[in-house]
Amino acid sequence: MSGKVFPTAQDAENAFYEALERCDLEAMMAVWAEDEDIVCVHPGGPRLAGQDQVRESWASLFAGGPQARLQVSAQVTIGGMMLAVHSVHEMFTLAGAKPGDPAPAPIVATNVYLRTAAGWKMIVHHASPAPVQGEPPAAAPAATPKILH
Amino acid sequence: MSGKVFPTAQDAENAFYEALERCDLEAMMAVWAEDEDIVCVHPGGPRLAGQDQVRESWASLFAGGPQARLQVSAQVTIGGMMLAVHSVHEMFTLAGAKPGDPAPAPIVATNVYLRTAAGWKMIVHHASPAPVQGEPPAAAPAATPKILH
Repeated sequence: MSGKVFPTAQDAENAFYEALERCDLEAMMAVWAEDEDIVCVHPGGPRLAGQDQVRESWASLFAGGPQARLQVSAQVTIGGMMLAVHSVHEMFTLAGAKPGDPAPAPIVATNVYLRTAAGWKMIVHHASPAPVQGEPPAAAPAATPKILH
Repeated sequence: MSGKVFPTAQDAENAFYEALERCDLEAMMAVWAEDEDIVCVHPGGPRLAGQDQVRESWASLFAGGPQARLQVSAQVTIGGMMLAVHSVHEMFTLAGAKPGDPAPAPIVATNVYLRTAAGWKMIVHHASPAPVQGEPPAAAPAATPKILH
């Protein structure tokens, strides 16, 4: 799976969130650059760096299998030739949640992608709990990407 | 001040943290790109976007004047021709803190800089509380920057 090629940063982001929702460790790690400078911050967690720490953290998070549905919204993207930065809101809905159950906190994530010889790969995922300001949760349309040349 | 030119992303980052420590709003806003796609997430806060929201948030944070000393450490940098990404730990020390007082939580920040016609400018600052893993707080030397060509 690590040979998977993503032609655009958005392809890599789509694969990232599919892997996250499915709790698919190999698909998740196929999104990340094979680089010791990768950085991952899970909500409330420490900064993790390098393949080993990042893989271990996802393996631990995925151990229980898929627990939640995920909706990604309100994307802001800034794209260069070699690097692309996406800011998104992540809204999780726990499986088996009943009406009236408290919803998990919305998450704001900054995702950075690098164009490598093997296509676009994730190099930074920084996620933290954040109230959503001035936007209906999980409903805002994706913004038009801004492309830099 | 908004005409200030930063020749490198590191120059912009140095100015960002100097402005943050001094609570200097004009110096802070001189670091940010004049762009509606800028994104700022303060620890535990919502995602702010655009000049108005970002300026208002710093004005509010700076209203009380300088309250803390700040040490930035453990920098990981990924630099391209047009975009640069820096991950750092921020350690605040409150003015007047006595030995034994609880220290403010360490902050992990992802900072993204864009090369503009007016030099390097900040376009993303995402900060969140995070325990520091495997590193003595505020003591790790800066890593060697990684340059992409």
